Amino acid sequence: MSEKIKKDLIRCRLCQEIKEGVYLKSYNLKVCLNCFLNFFKKRVEKTIEKFKMFDKKEKIAVAISGGKDSVALAKVLKDLGYNINLFHINTGIDDENYAENSEKAVKKFAEKENLPLKILNLKDEIKIDIKLAAKISKKEICGVCGMVKRYLLNREVKDFDVIVTGHTLDDEAGSLLSSLIFWKEFMKRQWPVLKEEESLKKRAKPLTLVFEKETKLFCEILKLPYNPQPCPLRGGPYLFFKNFIYTLEEEMPSSVLSFYKGFLKRKKEFKWEEKKIKLEPCQRCGYLTSAKICSFCRLKEKISNLL
Amino acid sequence: MSEKIKKDLIRCRLCQEIKEGVYLKSYNLKVCLNCFLNFFKKRVEKTIEKFKMFDKKEKIAVAISGGKDSVALAKVLKDLGYNINLFHINTGIDDENYAENSEKAVKKFAEKENLPLKILNLKDEIKIDIKLAAKISKKEICGVCGMVKRYLLNREVKDFDVIVTGHTLDDEAGSLLSSLIFWKEFMKRQWPVLKEEESLKKRAKPLTLVFEKETKLFCEILKLPYNPQPCPLRGGPYLFFKNFIYTLEEEMPSSVLSFYKGFLKRKKEFKWEEKKIKLEPCQRCGYLTSAKICSFCRLKEKISNLL
Repeated sequence: MSEKIKKDLIRCRLCQEIKEGVYLKSYNLKVCLNCFLNFFKKRVEKTIEKFKMFDKKEKIAVAISGGKDSVALAKVLKDLGYNINLFHINTGIDDENYAENSEKAVKKFAEKENLPLKILNLKDEIKIDIKLAAKISKKEICGVCGMVKRYLLNREVKDFDVIVTGHTLDDEAGSLLSSLIFWKEFMKRQWPVLKEEESLKKRAKPLTLVFEKETKLFCEILKLPYNPQPCPLRGGPYLFFKNFIYTLEEEMPSSVLSFYKGFLKRKKEFKWEEKKIKLEPCQRCGYLTSAKICSFCRLKEKISNLL
Repeated sequence: MSEKIKKDLIRCRLCQEIKEGVYLKSYNLKVCLNCFLNFFKKRVEKTIEKFKMFDKKEKIAVAISGGKDSVALAKVLKDLGYNINLFHINTGIDDENYAENSEKAVKKFAEKENLPLKILNLKDEIKIDIKLAAKISKKEICGVCGMVKRYLLNREVKDFDVIVTGHTLDDEAGSLLSSLIFWKEFMKRQWPVLKEEESLKKRAKPLTLVFEKETKLFCEILKLPYNPQPCPLRGGPYLFFKNFIYTLEEEMPSSVLSFYKGFLKRKKEFKWEEKKIKLEPCQRCGYLTSAKICSFCRLKEKISNLL
């Protein structure tokens, strides 16, 4: 997935000079590497403004995994002058030294860019590793890992105004497709920004309109430290749909952009059955949840019963 | 696509006997070959009844291409006691003798089943072959071929009550997916049956809830004559989405069924912008169209200007 975009000598359509550059077939645009950086930053800036995600006075917590997407996001936000702090959750995934390499990349990046960084350890929080946790909860690893990370992050950023994540167009279009295939209620909550709801911080996805191959190119041009390994535990339906989205864009350039933008434009036209998902505070920790006890507390209970 | 379902010695869940049979993973069902035939027929019969497609008093025109789907459809309808006539349009596609082989299969089937058959030649009607027609109209071959076949069939069946086609779940889910990706208005008209509108005959798709691998198995068990060649000119987005649907079902059995059924169930919840497509009679031939002159007459005009 997200192959490298081939570099070549081109006439840049933005600065008109003949230089090393790339052809972005999704936009039918040839740009030199320097203009690409601006083009990328502007797309992110426009996304932030269009969806009224946050402004320069707000305190922003960037969830940084150490992969290309979250690293590119942190760099763009810093360069655009936003007030950001980095939060990394070490997943403890030791296959192929994944968690270790990710943490290293994040530390290197934070140091290079002189950004405040806080690191949490998932294993410290739930006492066991994520594979076992998934087995105990009888759920997919990716689902449990995501749930725990969201919970921890939300708890850690009390003094912040918003949590931003590096979800890209590939991610968003992939989950939209999956929601449409299974007609999941989740689609109701799918939007580039979700406002604060009691104990749930505001969340925003400023990379929602850029492709992963662009975040990769951005990191490479700027030689940003990032961990190029995909998570060794990833898989399942999520990956299946994301792969399809990738192939779709390769086969029919710009189709993914129009798919996702079409959804954003038409979402209000869907007249969903009014089964509104009601969120109430968890009886254990107060985190907003659709059940009596939130998934995180239920997982912790299951684990402590076993240990 | 639509690979063979592997035959094996199984205990049939319907008749309980140990016999040669198949495992249908979409329904998590092991059935012997004989029970499969009944199972398949019943699914088609239920689809016809559920969507109130037609009854045994109506005169039915079956559009038969000679492929496994339309052949299976004609056989099921005959066995269920419907009053059917066959209509075959020879597409004139001579690559790999496709049109010739298809016509042969249809003739053999009609003779074997003692069914009335009418054959039309697409080339006689538009004077040129379909590849050239597609070039002239600057459209995809499949689109032009489909449009011409629909037009000719509609014209030929004046004395009939309904046209039925062999569109399968693979076809319908594929075009639904394509409509969702591009947010096409077409989705509004996507339904297993479309009622008569002035000059447009009622149309129905009784195979809308069965997979192509099932129509293939049905034909093979009964040794029905059909042309196993896929159309040598097929391709484009249609094939791309259909292939995805096939892979999706292989990866996540029954997901395609729930995708399409979910759409049927929720379609009424979509509150489309009320840009109702208004159909008016073509000024040349009277066929209902959304333009002043219908696509078929426009194509014929373009052709006669060139000849």
